[in-house]
Amino acid sequence: MAPPTAQAGGKQGKAPVVPLTNGITVTKEANFSQWYQEVVTKCELVDYYTEISGFYILRPSSMYIWNTIRTWFQKEIEKLGVEETSFPMFLSSKSLEKEKEHVEGFAPELAWVTKAGDKDLEVPVAVRPTSEAVMYPYYAKWIRSHRDLPFRLNQWNSVVRWEAKQTTPFLRAREFLWQEGHTAHLTEELAAKEVLEILDLYATVYEELLAVPVVRGNALGQNFSKMFDITVEDPNQKGEKLFVWQNSWGLSTRVIGVMVMIHGDNKGLVLPPRVSKIQVVIISVGITAKTSAEVRENLGKQVEELENSLNGAGVRVEVDNREGYTPGFKFADWEMKGVPLRLEFGPKDAANSVVSYSRRDTGAKGTIPVAEIASQVPALLETIQKDMYNKANEYFTSHRLVLNDWAEVVPALDARNVVLIPFCGEPSCEDQIKDKTKSDKHRELGPDGKPQPSMGMKSLCIPFDQPSGLVQNETKCLNPGCGRFAKSWVMFGRSY
Amino acid sequence: MAPPTAQAGGKQGKAPVVPLTNGITVTKEANFSQWYQEVVTKCELVDYYTEISGFYILRPSSMYIWNTIRTWFQKEIEKLGVEETSFPMFLSSKSLEKEKEHVEGFAPELAWVTKAGDKDLEVPVAVRPTSEAVMYPYYAKWIRSHRDLPFRLNQWNSVVRWEAKQTTPFLRAREFLWQEGHTAHLTEELAAKEVLEILDLYATVYEELLAVPVVRGNALGQNFSKMFDITVEDPNQKGEKLFVWQNSWGLSTRVIGVMVMIHGDNKGLVLPPRVSKIQVVIISVGITAKTSAEVRENLGKQVEELENSLNGAGVRVEVDNREGYTPGFKFADWEMKGVPLRLEFGPKDAANSVVSYSRRDTGAKGTIPVAEIASQVPALLETIQKDMYNKANEYFTSHRLVLNDWAEVVPALDARNVVLIPFCGEPSCEDQIKDKTKSDKHRELGPDGKPQPSMGMKSLCIPFDQPSGLVQNETKCLNPGCGRFAKSWVMFGRSY
Ligand SMILES: [Zn+2]
Ligand SMILES: [Zn+2]
Repeated sequence: MAPPTAQAGGKQGKAPVVPLTNGITVTKEANFSQWYQEVVTKCELVDYYTEISGFYILRPSSMYIWNTIRTWFQKEIEKLGVEETSFPMFLSSKSLEKEKEHVEGFAPELAWVTKAGDKDLEVPVAVRPTSEAVMYPYYAKWIRSHRDLPFRLNQWNSVVRWEAKQTTPFLRAREFLWQEGHTAHLTEELAAKEVLEILDLYATVYEELLAVPVVRGNALGQNFSKMFDITVEDPNQKGEKLFVWQNSWGLSTRVIGVMVMIHGDNKGLVLPPRVSKIQVVIISVGITAKTSAEVRENLGKQVEELENSLNGAGVRVEVDNREGYTPGFKFADWEMKGVPLRLEFGPKDAANSVVSYSRRDTGAKGTIPVAEIASQVPALLETIQKDMYNKANEYFTSHRLVLNDWAEVVPALDARNVVLIPFCGEPSCEDQIKDKTKSDKHRELGPDGKPQPSMGMKSLCIPFDQPSGLVQNETKCLNPGCGRFAKSWVMFGRSY
Repeated sequence: MAPPTAQAGGKQGKAPVVPLTNGITVTKEANFSQWYQEVVTKCELVDYYTEISGFYILRPSSMYIWNTIRTWFQKEIEKLGVEETSFPMFLSSKSLEKEKEHVEGFAPELAWVTKAGDKDLEVPVAVRPTSEAVMYPYYAKWIRSHRDLPFRLNQWNSVVRWEAKQTTPFLRAREFLWQEGHTAHLTEELAAKEVLEILDLYATVYEELLAVPVVRGNALGQNFSKMFDITVEDPNQKGEKLFVWQNSWGLSTRVIGVMVMIHGDNKGLVLPPRVSKIQVVIISVGITAKTSAEVRENLGKQVEELENSLNGAGVRVEVDNREGYTPGFKFADWEMKGVPLRLEFGPKDAANSVVSYSRRDTGAKGTIPVAEIASQVPALLETIQKDMYNKANEYFTSHRLVLNDWAEVVPALDARNVVLIPFCGEPSCEDQIKDKTKSDKHRELGPDGKPQPSMGMKSLCIPFDQPSGLVQNETKCLNPGCGRFAKSWVMFGRSY
């Protein structure tokens, strides 16, 4: 990102010729895919692993985001009584057959180890795409009695799904980091209660950490509760075997990609302060060839004091002391990388005992008295966090349309909205809907620069917060070809 | 571990017939290998992954130990400026060839992915046995100038080495968790300084967390500083290329196995309080068929108060409320699992306003006034931690012999000592020493129950704390076939 100057150990006061920041070259509106790829690489969230396609290197600033999520979520599930485990990364073809239903969908994406050194393995093993088939045989062994329930384990690892489709950093990668929780409960009610608790934690990760609003509702189409060959004795009826109710839940680094897409702008990344490795960058300004050595030295000392004071207040701060770069170059560089707040300090600021600031999210500028930075900067960072959430929420709210007329659906989707419609809940009806809502309009450009066809819309959730106007056994499903009564308002959208 | 009672939902006051704890069946002295395997499985640190040999499942109590180490170490390396990254788990055969020297030793142990789904990969990829070959191409790309140095990245992951040798949980597994730090420095001195800092952190993990003493010294035989094709411009000489100095350092779950071996006894595991998921177990005692419902209820309430009070003091406490088990059964069960401190509470204790305790490490018993448990229990746990360290340290010290006579070396090794001898430092001399110190005496029993031959001794380190009596250019190397002068006292031992 930051090429060295032509003159190593360059002297202050000169103005060496340095290349300008190699910024984002396309707009989000004109070519979303390319914009996204430039942002995640130029802002140093990832690098492409050129040795093997579909794999990405997570660099320190994305690891910071992931670890913030991990630390918070881990603490919360510990409170729920979930314990941590670490299972091997391989599954044998034998256990694969036993637990077919969990792996079948992944079969075309399994990475098979067939050799160790130069010897063929007697039985090939696959890298886990998810760990049900790895773990469940042990659940059957460890859960001996209803007293062992609830039985709850979680692990943090990476999984491999050798996608044939086009891959994208964070959003679809052949290996990704995640947590996978696998739990067993005595009753369906207890399992369902846990699902709601976990969904609430996931929503909090999005809302409180990533400043991304979510619609709370029941997860549709996700078969959270399934039955397995793990049984316990019914505590109410001696000798009777009960199947346990099993949940699986996972949160992956995909959320980072969603965050990038939602907050990023044409200058690059915009990071919510709570997950930004660097929250504040301090840049010296107003130094010219005429500035005396004494003034320079004084400014340097004061910048150091600012840094210490912010560190002491728990702010993650970086001073950009790179020599041979103009302040303008540094501004653009840190703006591109999404650092939430820039502080500038020069002779004029020093004379007024203030620092100048510039917000990354809004571009708003102002000054803060030096004496108050330890309280005002953390407060400003919290304001930025909340404003980013509110801005995204306003966008989402204005792009979520409640529709009673089928004719409005496709135009609404083409204009990048999601829609709430009365829906019967039948899978066959959803298939029809998906088919009817494919479109050629407003197509995204693909990585090859050519437009891609728009997908049909899929059901996303049944919002807890239901619009009015739907009367049971009276209001019809909005799909004209359906004819059934609608059960509830359901949110539909095209997925990316 | 804990089989259910014959009567589900069993009633209090009855004495159901329950099987005794399935304890450790051999002594540490008689059959060390079997003792170790029973301890790690019956105490629920691991389970064998029967689907694929050489792999183990880490259960919550070992994950607790590992996470305690991870959290502490991560905080320390952050202070040193090491950043976190996550590289893909696969390396291509191409990068393997480029970075041959790092992978050559691992070649027979590489797990090769040759298929994805049912399609053969064009180029097979190997699961990382360590990540130098995965990472270094990017170091060459990212390090543009001496100003990018030191360049320090660390990652927490698992690696795969498909060992042909006999595997053992923690000590030698085909997949294990570790951290791997890979750093680049401008000078050899700076790289060497980092090595000492990291070795000091590792020593602290052993000593302060696992209560295992280590001899501090220079790591012998580990080629920490190697040269690679990663260059920067010499800051002192324009246009001159400098190779950077590279360090690699790793700490793995192997340390858990070492801890088990050192502290465990014939009753099972003994856990240092700082890494024990459960530090204190509370067991109700003295309840018989004659005990009134009121007394029972009162005891239950008081036990709950004890639990809350300890929780409030930051103690990790578990109340064993399992019905249908005698206190004696519970005592044996928690002793086997290594919980550092047992608290017993019954009508007599209640009458005296005390709790009775029993230390796992020494078996020492006593009482603590109920009013003081919030201060005395944490203090007692710290005492246990320190006593465990001291006991191990005394054992090590008394089993570390300073020898001036070659004839004493093999008998000392056979009696399970390590030795400090004057040594010339030549690899060819070490090869001779290794050969001369093989022995048939005091052989360990292997997993097949048959004695295994004892290995020859290897150099372990040059202790900073050197015994006296070695005169440069006068004292000879202790190996009778050598004849060179000794450079320093070097610690040698047989490895397990
Ligand atoms: Zn319908
Ligand atoms: Zn010698």
